[in-house]
Amino acid sequence: MKKRGKQQGNPNPYRRMTMLNGYTLPRTPWHYAGNVLAVEYETDPKKASAFLPQGLSLLSGQCAVYFIEWQYAGDTGKDYLDPVCSQYRETILLLSAQYQDKPMAYCPFIWVDQDKALMRGLIQGWPKQMGETWITRSYDLPSKAAPGNGSGAMLGAALSVGGRRQAEAVVTLEMETASLPSPTFAGSALVRYFPNLVQGRHDCPAVHELVQLKSRDVKISPVWKGKASLTIHEHPYNELYDLKPVSVLSGYKFTVALTVDDLVHLCDFTLP
Amino acid sequence: MKKRGKQQGNPNPYRRMTMLNGYTLPRTPWHYAGNVLAVEYETDPKKASAFLPQGLSLLSGQCAVYFIEWQYAGDTGKDYLDPVCSQYRETILLLSAQYQDKPMAYCPFIWVDQDKALMRGLIQGWPKQMGETWITRSYDLPSKAAPGNGSGAMLGAALSVGGRRQAEAVVTLEMETASLPSPTFAGSALVRYFPNLVQGRHDCPAVHELVQLKSRDVKISPVWKGKASLTIHEHPYNELYDLKPVSVLSGYKFTVALTVDDLVHLCDFTLP
Amino acid sequence: MKKRGKQQGNPNPYRRMTMLNGYTLPRTPWHYAGNVLAVEYETDPKKASAFLPQGLSLLSGQCAVYFIEWQYAGDTGKDYLDPVCSQYRETILLLSAQYQDKPMAYCPFIWVDQDKALMRGLIQGWPKQMGETWITRSYDLPSKAAPGNGSGAMLGAALSVGGRRQAEAVVTLEMETASLPSPTFAGSALVRYFPNLVQGRHDCPAVHELVQLKSRDVKISPVWKGKASLTIHEHPYNELYDLKPVSVLSGYKFTVALTVDDLVHLCDFTLP
Amino acid sequence: MKKRGKQQGNPNPYRRMTMLNGYTLPRTPWHYAGNVLAVEYETDPKKASAFLPQGLSLLSGQCAVYFIEWQYAGDTGKDYLDPVCSQYRETILLLSAQYQDKPMAYCPFIWVDQDKALMRGLIQGWPKQMGETWITRSYDLPSKAAPGNGSGAMLGAALSVGGRRQAEAVVTLEMETASLPSPTFAGSALVRYFPNLVQGRHDCPAVHELVQLKSRDVKISPVWKGKASLTIHEHPYNELYDLKPVSVLSGYKFTVALTVDDLVHLCDFTLP
Repeated sequence: MKKRGKQQGNPNPYRRMTMLNGYTLPRTPWHYAGNVLAVEYETDPKKASAFLPQGLSLLSGQCAVYFIEWQYAGDTGKDYLDPVCSQYRETILLLSAQYQDKPMAYCPFIWVDQDKALMRGLIQGWPKQMGETWITRSYDLPSKAAPGNGSGAMLGAALSVGGRRQAEAVVTLEMETASLPSPTFAGSALVRYFPNLVQGRHDCPAVHELVQLKSRDVKISPVWKGKASLTIHEHPYNELYDLKPVSVLSGYKFTVALTVDDLVHLCDFTLP
Repeated sequence: MKKRGKQQGNPNPYRRMTMLNGYTLPRTPWHYAGNVLAVEYETDPKKASAFLPQGLSLLSGQCAVYFIEWQYAGDTGKDYLDPVCSQYRETILLLSAQYQDKPMAYCPFIWVDQDKALMRGLIQGWPKQMGETWITRSYDLPSKAAPGNGSGAMLGAALSVGGRRQAEAVVTLEMETASLPSPTFAGSALVRYFPNLVQGRHDCPAVHELVQLKSRDVKISPVWKGKASLTIHEHPYNELYDLKPVSVLSGYKFTVALTVDDLVHLCDFTLP
Repeated sequence: MKKRGKQQGNPNPYRRMTMLNGYTLPRTPWHYAGNVLAVEYETDPKKASAFLPQGLSLLSGQCAVYFIEWQYAGDTGKDYLDPVCSQYRETILLLSAQYQDKPMAYCPFIWVDQDKALMRGLIQGWPKQMGETWITRSYDLPSKAAPGNGSGAMLGAALSVGGRRQAEAVVTLEMETASLPSPTFAGSALVRYFPNLVQGRHDCPAVHELVQLKSRDVKISPVWKGKASLTIHEHPYNELYDLKPVSVLSGYKFTVALTVDDLVHLCDFTLP
Repeated sequence: MKKRGKQQGNPNPYRRMTMLNGYTLPRTPWHYAGNVLAVEYETDPKKASAFLPQGLSLLSGQCAVYFIEWQYAGDTGKDYLDPVCSQYRETILLLSAQYQDKPMAYCPFIWVDQDKALMRGLIQGWPKQMGETWITRSYDLPSKAAPGNGSGAMLGAALSVGGRRQAEAVVTLEMETASLPSPTFAGSALVRYFPNLVQGRHDCPAVHELVQLKSRDVKISPVWKGKASLTIHEHPYNELYDLKPVSVLSGYKFTVALTVDDLVHLCDFTLP
């Protein structure tokens, strides 16, 4: 995890260009592959609406929560050969929003378990915090220790934050389906924000803008769908409980691969 | 992780039988499924020999180190639906030993990242300590973020103990093979040991016996074999470095499922 | 964390005596120092009674829960110079039991966050599991970031197990006191247990005995006492919730140092 | 850890003002108390110089590394009563730089173990990554398990990143001193940076400025000074090893409390 640091045009003879591979400057695209367990559900639309930033309005109370085991790599090397540096687990919550009549997922909460994933997300506008995600694995052998890969297989997932269980889900696979859970995370609207910390200027952020994630080369495995349960637990501080299910729709299991190397600006809230 | 506690024959009316499901009493068999990356190598036989307990002699300097992502369940329920309780990662080192002219692997070092796995191992005689194992994952989609599943795929693995990198390996798959790495962990010789802590009696352990692990219902996926590298790092306390490679033979990738519910006694060292 | 392994009298010329420093053979005494936050409370005596092993009966429903930041060292070296190896945090729950009319604490649950502490405890009979303990710290400077060390200072503590919050307490210091919380952990009754894993012999443990912990050189700082709150959360598996408070008595803050190098045998349950 | 989200002037009736307590908007000052073990040393000035950003030049090769156990709280509540949310451990490396002939520490590397600390640092310009810091503790009782608080006491500290030991130090206290280690972290120069992620604009960061940390209400305990050793280990990726000691000067132990609620802008690198 190298940092910016060496700036172009700087005459300092000691500055090595190898310092430029900072994770904060993803000039190199990032490639991801992940195993996903997801649950679609309905939440209270009044409460969901309260989580939306300026520029977005709520399309419906339909949410999706994704539990994912990711592995990633940059363009030039086999980062995944040192897996402590290239694997992380993530829980993403998405709301059904719209921007100027265009449906667009919005992420009010997201948890990862690795700092590079946290940072790379934060500069894109994902409001990442640290949390622990656990997902049942299927194995390519019959065993009482694992669900199978097809109809009837049951898989669980859980999120803990700061030693408190926040959410847990169980999905029972029923059939293959042609459709992904909705809302989906490719193309999410995100808020990029960087505050001003000078006294008296805390209300004038240096960056405050609505952007849209751009993914490319998205590949999806066969998608399994089925019944699901989802519990969101009360928590003394965070508001995830406001987005608890009023009804659970479906569960999904699939694998996804994609590349991220661009963003679309939607609007800049720092302009007068 | 429930404990012994409620003893049979105890007349206490408040004792609930639900307390009897202790993990230390595996009357219920344990089922395991795991993804394995392994490396066979040669170490210095003089040094390897020094790690053997009474009753075993060294067959050769060939060792195997296994990096495994496990999931397990008991017989009666779907433990794996709460994966925080049923997944762990493990690094196992095995030496090529023999007991009365019968080849038998012996495990001088093993690290896991979960307490139930630690305890269940310790009562079987696995000398388990806590450590973090990381293994590159293959995904069922083409992606720059992951190796494929076949020839040319490169996978890494690493072990850290107490914040120190202990071992790291890279395996490049070349071809399917009919044979597993050797030595293999099913049928390992283990030392069960429980000390006496009364002063003056520390040299008279309550339990000290050589046993052999019994596995059943072992299932193995197709096995991929290829080239490998393995580095074992120096460490201020532990002696894993004594078992470093003098040459590396081969790397392997496969999935295994098995059930453990029995042990074979070989000899009792507490007898005069 | 070295293991038994090298046995006396073994003629193998490669066996080094340096291998004998196993943590499972504490011939060297262990010295401990810890900062303690504790809460005395009353639980339902019927439920508490159900947790007692053979040989003990319940004296009263009074319990104490201890949250402790430990540091330890052996006799011969400054283990604490590598603090990753010599620090751990612990939550201990104690019941008020008696053995043959002699009051004696009994520990149904204890959680630590380090494997050496887990192992050293297990061979003594502490039913240790892994869990995360957090305790508010006092600092020797006035700051809004910390409670003071005297009257009015408020300190919190919490236990999480497997990503689930299990217990949390707040103590408000009021005055110094001459007495420790009761029951106290020095002199606890413990059950040492090592199972038989051969099929058909699971009910005939190799070791099953009631012992009493012996501590020596116990030193206690001034003890602060005050009001306390304690919450024990429901949990899908473990029975800690059975021992929840029906009333909370007092909170305590103090520092303790002690040495452990002996055990007293009380009774052997493996005898006919 | 709450996020921005509710924006002023937004007419949405569902938006609660409780959402405004985001950690990214520290309108409420942050108060810190920490126990510090520090080592002053000399590194190769050519290598150190290469880590400096625009605007700063190297004053000398003198560095200081700080290992700190922090606890923090906001202005309005006793955050420290839930210590999982208000404690973290940190390793800070500082170089001796100058800005326009004014001496000013610069931080090329800093590691913390908690996400709120990471985020709060990143918006100030601290290049925080996740890492594990361990520090020997003194206790207020004589014990072989702990060094004392005065002359002759030996304390260790260590940093691990991603399961690799990065740095370790031992300090032997000799005498009280009137001076802090140099460079010191109050008043450090920092680079605030927020990238542009739109393709083709990666070289035009949205925020790129040199700032200076402002601390107030700084309180320091008596400072102990003595001999020290420091080892920085090689690492396959990060450049901390470039800043390894060529000679070690002194070690320090003290406690600090301070409040941070302001920043000073030094220069803006985004201006043409």
